[in-house]
Amino acid sequence: MAQPDRPVFVLAGEGRSRDLFPGVTITTNAGENLMLSVVRFEPEASVPVHAHPHEQAGLLVSGRLKFTIGDETRVLEPGDQWLIPGGVPHTVVAVDGPAVALDVFNPIREDYL
Amino acid sequence: MAQPDRPVFVLAGEGRSRDLFPGVTITTNAGENLMLSVVRFEPEASVPVHAHPHEQAGLLVSGRLKFTIGDETRVLEPGDQWLIPGGVPHTVVAVDGPAVALDVFNPIREDYL
Repeated sequence: MAQPDRPVFVLAGEGRSRDLFPGVTITTNAGENLMLSVVRFEPEASVPVHAHPHEQAGLLVSGRLKFTIGDETRVLEPGDQWLIPGGVPHTVVAVDGPAVALDVFNPIREDYL
Repeated sequence: MAQPDRPVFVLAGEGRSRDLFPGVTITTNAGENLMLSVVRFEPEASVPVHAHPHEQAGLLVSGRLKFTIGDETRVLEPGDQWLIPGGVPHTVVAVDGPAVALDVFNPIREDYL
């Protein structure tokens, strides 16, 4: 069988890293139509309200995040998830310490490549 | 602003759960083009080799998984990721105890709704 022409395994920490906002760092890896983004928040770090046409989903791996999607706000615990339709404004802040989340985008965000 | 017509937050454990294989349980939640699937493996539980047209990506949350994608095999640790193009055969087994993974599919898997 032909092996895929992209790496199929990504070890923890590998990928393209960038500082997105003060105290917020992302490490991204992309397939064809799926992009994975590990987001690391320092305590109280935040992502200001924004929107993009890409659908976004994710899982909180550790820590606590106060997340607002549209007009709904929740404080999330590890294992909690989000499903954000394209175009819907959202914002997030790390509460009670640092946090790590996994975000997924479809289509891939060319601005994160 | 209009609020999305689907739930945007999914608390840990919520979703549609099913036993996929002996010792392998999935809990799925879907947006429009993204599906999240939390996969819980009992020790030594496995998913036999299979393929599907959907692109699949994922992150190992806890435990260790021996993963084969195409003809490449790796033992993954928490934080490691996979990017599986559509149509590529893959198989996985939990090694050294239980494991929890997050899988993501595009498009959504209608068979998991």
